[in-house]
Amino acid sequence: MMNKQISLADIEAARERLVGVALRTPLIRLNVEDAPAEIYLKLENLQPIGSFKLRGAGNAMALAAPDKLRHGVVTASAGNMAQGVAWCARRLGLPCTVFVPDHAPQTKLDAIARLGGVVKKVTFDEWWQIIVSHEVDHLGLFIHPVSETAVIAGNGTIGLEILEELPDVDAVITPYGGGGLTSGVASAIRARKPDTRLFAAEVATAAPLAPSLAAGSPQEVVYQPSFVDGIGGKSVLSEMWPLVSSLVDGSLVVELEAVAAALRLLLERNRVLAEGAGATPVAAALAGLAGSGKVVCVVSGGNLDSSKLIKILAGELP
Amino acid sequence: MMNKQISLADIEAARERLVGVALRTPLIRLNVEDAPAEIYLKLENLQPIGSFKLRGAGNAMALAAPDKLRHGVVTASAGNMAQGVAWCARRLGLPCTVFVPDHAPQTKLDAIARLGGVVKKVTFDEWWQIIVSHEVDHLGLFIHPVSETAVIAGNGTIGLEILEELPDVDAVITPYGGGGLTSGVASAIRARKPDTRLFAAEVATAAPLAPSLAAGSPQEVVYQPSFVDGIGGKSVLSEMWPLVSSLVDGSLVVELEAVAAALRLLLERNRVLAEGAGATPVAAALAGLAGSGKVVCVVSGGNLDSSKLIKILAGELP
Repeated sequence: MMNKQISLADIEAARERLVGVALRTPLIRLNVEDAPAEIYLKLENLQPIGSFKLRGAGNAMALAAPDKLRHGVVTASAGNMAQGVAWCARRLGLPCTVFVPDHAPQTKLDAIARLGGVVKKVTFDEWWQIIVSHEVDHLGLFIHPVSETAVIAGNGTIGLEILEELPDVDAVITPYGGGGLTSGVASAIRARKPDTRLFAAEVATAAPLAPSLAAGSPQEVVYQPSFVDGIGGKSVLSEMWPLVSSLVDGSLVVELEAVAAALRLLLERNRVLAEGAGATPVAAALAGLAGSGKVVCVVSGGNLDSSKLIKILAGELP
Repeated sequence: MMNKQISLADIEAARERLVGVALRTPLIRLNVEDAPAEIYLKLENLQPIGSFKLRGAGNAMALAAPDKLRHGVVTASAGNMAQGVAWCARRLGLPCTVFVPDHAPQTKLDAIARLGGVVKKVTFDEWWQIIVSHEVDHLGLFIHPVSETAVIAGNGTIGLEILEELPDVDAVITPYGGGGLTSGVASAIRARKPDTRLFAAEVATAAPLAPSLAAGSPQEVVYQPSFVDGIGGKSVLSEMWPLVSSLVDGSLVVELEAVAAALRLLLERNRVLAEGAGATPVAAALAGLAGSGKVVCVVSGGNLDSSKLIKILAGELP
């Protein structure tokens, strides 16, 4: 369904639509002096819903024809896209239903409920089936969390902002979930500054992209659930493969322990809370996997259960 | 020593000097729907040293004559001003010594050491004596953490930024430590938008300003140390009293438990870490003490020991 390139014009148009919806998030230095690179943080965890997903959801819903929206909206999400869609639905006065996998963390479910979204829990396999098939037994406009052009273009606005703040950026790392964030940001930056090194980042317990890039085709891997609940799957979404594989220079794989250490460091040195997905690019940059120079890490979100945070701070997780 | 008004011209000049030194921090909404006001957060905890103190230190050191700086700089601080001075000293290649009270938290001491500052621990009373007398037995230019005009003017740049982002602000709350932050921010806003309600915020366990304002003169109170280590004292600094009392509309006093709750909320809903002082204005705004409308809380800093954070999250502190 989705494998064409995302044009710069689509991304620039998305930016106009997102004024007053999504925050232009700050880009700040990681306060670590002896890092292998000059590391910057694009703080998407400061969005009102605590993640970048507002951008894609906001753009997709702004582009939808009014008659398609009349029964409301539906999405399938581990929690963050659900918040993005629910936030925009509330703003437009529309009902919102979200299908979540049964491992979705309580903090995200609570947030969806606060925004007025109706949560439907399904198994991880059922949930993945919705993502793959784009089919869901429900009234309302289905907003795919990853692979709609409008969603990817919305995510791409992050890339435009990075280039405006740091025109001489050398590398950008995005966490790799379904591929919508990675391909959106990469599309914007490849179009404007083609020599930038563009990386996805994955956690070793759920990392299908790295072996897929090595093999030249989508591969299946074993998926181990962990506190890094916002990214990772059994396989690369095949519909995203052509776009993603044409854009990225590689996927950087880090261990769970390194993600936890990066999460602690972000809190201690920069006073921001990242969820596991958001800390993954920082773990990769700190390990030197993206090389030297000016390296931007997209801190995709910060929705982490307090109970898990306590364990991570205490060194009891992972 | 210091009781004259701080001019808008001084604050505007400070802003020019601080370009490239202090961050222009973001102003974002507190993500709480049912609050008594439209609450905004001025995120000074995102400064490279984790607090607003970079502004005052940066301005004072930029204004100091080079020959005064030749033996380096000295300050007295519970930790945050020390980091501000040490950060600027490192930038200028100067030695830096800081006197800290013995209850200063380890996370702040570690940060001072990372920045190359030499820490001298003294008792709280000895430390307070330095603050009051402006006298310290040490070579180097003494940068007072609170009451130098240049420091207050540097702090005032926060007020300019608030007004630019939110010209129709109704109220601003600053945590009350020595009075340098409160009077700096209030000086800027009183000059530009005089009808703004301007409040200090104190924690009940160390709150000299509220009874002083009630009595019309500086009063002594019992000081109980707590996890809110960045503000509070036994008394209002007498040299600051004329300025502070002429500027603020009141001091909002909140209990330790409310500060802890605000700190947890900031982390959960806005994914930022505040230290106790930084969360105090938010506790006051959430209690409705600053009234309704657009209320800006200056989140002054985010330097909190991980061990204390774990206890606060677990509900074991205070």
